Amino acid sequence: MKLNPQPLLERLQSLARLGRREVIRQELADQFPEDLAEGLARLELEEGLQVLQGLEEETAAYVLVELPTETARQYVRELPDATLAHYLDILPMDDALDLREELGPERFESLLEIIPREDAREIRRLLNYPEDSVGRIMTESFFEAKPDQTMAELLMDIRNSPAEKYEMVNDVYVLDPSRTLLGVFSLRKAIRAHPEAQAAEVMNTNVITSHAEDVAEDAARRMARYGFYALPVLDGQGRMVGLFTGDDAQTILREAETEDQLKFGAVSGDVEAYLSLNVWQLVKRRFPWLLALFVAETFTGAVMRHYGQASEDLKLSPLTFFIPLLIGAGGNCGSQVTTTITRALALGEVGPGDWFRVFRRELATAVCIGALLGTVGFLRAYLPIPIIGWNSGWDLSLVVGIALPLIILWSAIIGSQLPIAAKRLGVDPAVMSAPFITTFVDATGLIIYFEIARRLLI
Amino acid sequence: MKLNPQPLLERLQSLARLGRREVIRQELADQFPEDLAEGLARLELEEGLQVLQGLEEETAAYVLVELPTETARQYVRELPDATLAHYLDILPMDDALDLREELGPERFESLLEIIPREDAREIRRLLNYPEDSVGRIMTESFFEAKPDQTMAELLMDIRNSPAEKYEMVNDVYVLDPSRTLLGVFSLRKAIRAHPEAQAAEVMNTNVITSHAEDVAEDAARRMARYGFYALPVLDGQGRMVGLFTGDDAQTILREAETEDQLKFGAVSGDVEAYLSLNVWQLVKRRFPWLLALFVAETFTGAVMRHYGQASEDLKLSPLTFFIPLLIGAGGNCGSQVTTTITRALALGEVGPGDWFRVFRRELATAVCIGALLGTVGFLRAYLPIPIIGWNSGWDLSLVVGIALPLIILWSAIIGSQLPIAAKRLGVDPAVMSAPFITTFVDATGLIIYFEIARRLLI
Repeated sequence: MKLNPQPLLERLQSLARLGRREVIRQELADQFPEDLAEGLARLELEEGLQVLQGLEEETAAYVLVELPTETARQYVRELPDATLAHYLDILPMDDALDLREELGPERFESLLEIIPREDAREIRRLLNYPEDSVGRIMTESFFEAKPDQTMAELLMDIRNSPAEKYEMVNDVYVLDPSRTLLGVFSLRKAIRAHPEAQAAEVMNTNVITSHAEDVAEDAARRMARYGFYALPVLDGQGRMVGLFTGDDAQTILREAETEDQLKFGAVSGDVEAYLSLNVWQLVKRRFPWLLALFVAETFTGAVMRHYGQASEDLKLSPLTFFIPLLIGAGGNCGSQVTTTITRALALGEVGPGDWFRVFRRELATAVCIGALLGTVGFLRAYLPIPIIGWNSGWDLSLVVGIALPLIILWSAIIGSQLPIAAKRLGVDPAVMSAPFITTFVDATGLIIYFEIARRLLI
Repeated sequence: MKLNPQPLLERLQSLARLGRREVIRQELADQFPEDLAEGLARLELEEGLQVLQGLEEETAAYVLVELPTETARQYVRELPDATLAHYLDILPMDDALDLREELGPERFESLLEIIPREDAREIRRLLNYPEDSVGRIMTESFFEAKPDQTMAELLMDIRNSPAEKYEMVNDVYVLDPSRTLLGVFSLRKAIRAHPEAQAAEVMNTNVITSHAEDVAEDAARRMARYGFYALPVLDGQGRMVGLFTGDDAQTILREAETEDQLKFGAVSGDVEAYLSLNVWQLVKRRFPWLLALFVAETFTGAVMRHYGQASEDLKLSPLTFFIPLLIGAGGNCGSQVTTTITRALALGEVGPGDWFRVFRRELATAVCIGALLGTVGFLRAYLPIPIIGWNSGWDLSLVVGIALPLIILWSAIIGSQLPIAAKRLGVDPAVMSAPFITTFVDATGLIIYFEIARRLLI
């Protein structure tokens, strides 16, 4: 029931200041890695390292896996090889592989040299599967039975199996000697069946499977569709090679939904926790699309020039040629920001209390993007080169070059603060939809444009 | 591995035409309810009823639960009370309750009179919880143990428990005599522990729980966050009253994501499969927001009029006052359509082969919305009443009233067909983002406007 991270965050801060490992270990023994990771992501790096290194090693390893990629990168940079190798050793193979992105391929490879050879070999085997495939994230530990095995034998097998490596496994997979999957039954069913019943009699042969080469998102959607908690994974020859578990599927679906939503709001790049990205990274995720849309939008200006010149009667002022361009840029920037913030609110990465932190970041990001786009806008308006520029005179071009960054700034503030305000008022932030923000920015953006025009053009 | 529904759909059609119940039952015995529901949703009602009534009753009941709400409504209208009561009886309580929306409160209540009294009482108890709460969808069947119960006793209990009602339950919950939750352990752990070990020694006391009154979406997100497959549900007094299982959580998260995305694209209303909605329902979901945004966007026109009148030097033509309004409406309509279609593509409700079906529906919807919004636009431009109208003369008003529906139509076609084309080309449809569609429609919408203006105004 730890919905509010605040108290935990404060505890982590004071524990870090205290800096005594045994106290940290004891005090945080009951915490879940997911909560600790959320707290650590908000600590200063120095403090966070104190806490991380104080934790029980297994917990610390899981916390590292749960941290946002960018944050985890900062941590691993500070941690010695020996510690990291130990983490890799402790973690299940798929989670260990997950750290490859944070460590970088070279360091990851060098760490594989240190850990036990059998583990390194397993990790390298998973690495052979394509990125984003089921093979990369499957677990190779699952309960299996021969078709003629009795329930009594099976339960005895499970009792005698080594350490608790099967954390998420609740089913038994029936394989023939060539490791072809024949059927599946639950542990529940194994307990309830007659002790002398054979696996082949108990199993359900109608199994939904996935392939190691399948795109993980598709397999996760399939799992969710049927309400299953795991899918057996087959190789090209139909042999069962692993298990795709529901906890990994949930993570993948969550990230896929985030990626889709951001992409849909014209924000590109890998899924990352909003607060773990710095301003420069935010600019990189937004500027390319914004620039592309800006260039596309100059086409509307061309349309207006065309009709303005073709028929004198329409009496179009050159000032109006830039209107679609300006309100378009404002609307697109507002869409990007509101998409990002609304998603971060939905995932709980950002809360109403973070409004000022968000304000600062969005302001800085908008200043960068505004400066870049303003320069492009000025040049587009001013340059007396056919096709590239519109030769609009320096005064009108200056109006465009000044209005553009101001509109960007304004739309970033509106796009980030309105969803947070909605959340604070108990309204679903998604109501501050992209069209809503766009419409709002259209009118107010025009006021900015005309006010500047009135002052500079007369 | 039944990814492509086409072959199943064809089989269902020929089985329906054959119309022999015993053949249907036998042929479809191996199918999952989710697949059958997908097929049934695309059959004619007559055919679908043939298939549904041919199925084994338990399967039929689950198929009804899996059908999109609107489609299920059509089916239950045709089914006799006796059959429906039997379905309610077969289904787990939470699924039975799920059918209340399709049946309507009155018919649901009257069916409760027919089913066994104990079941009806249980369903009524769940009905007492708030809508969208965990209590409404929890299952009341779970494995429980007393703290001093040994593993041997527990396994014996499980063996002797009645029919397989615990389909999704893999954990054992330890309750004290007042039914307060003390801890939890997995069946796996129960098998592996010493037969004489007591529940209190085996259990993990650090449990993430939910409350029956909690909003189901929040609880589902919590479950996903920790990668669990079930959360125990407590009542106000901290007693365990049920189990919130992962399959329900997945369904809820999927619907919540859909609702968020649609809301974000300014589409309102309950989550429904795209193809199960008729044109009138599509209009109802889109027009209110579109109208609200249209009215808000008229503010941009007011801004332009203000500056046009305030300073003669800006030389603004009345024709340009309507530009933000027109391209805004086109962009918003395009956003709505592309949001809806992209989501339907992501969920597999619509495939590339459905392009013409989508085209027809969107065309019809856009004609209705365009006619409504065109009328509003004409009146707004024409009426010589202060505040309400702009007194723009009948010719300019007519240009607006004609251009608006055409732009709406055009943006609906673009917004629906571009994502489908992207999917067909193997590009992620989400790249056809709202800003992309908006920008595209801006320029092309202007051409429509000026072409009409040129013809009517000169």
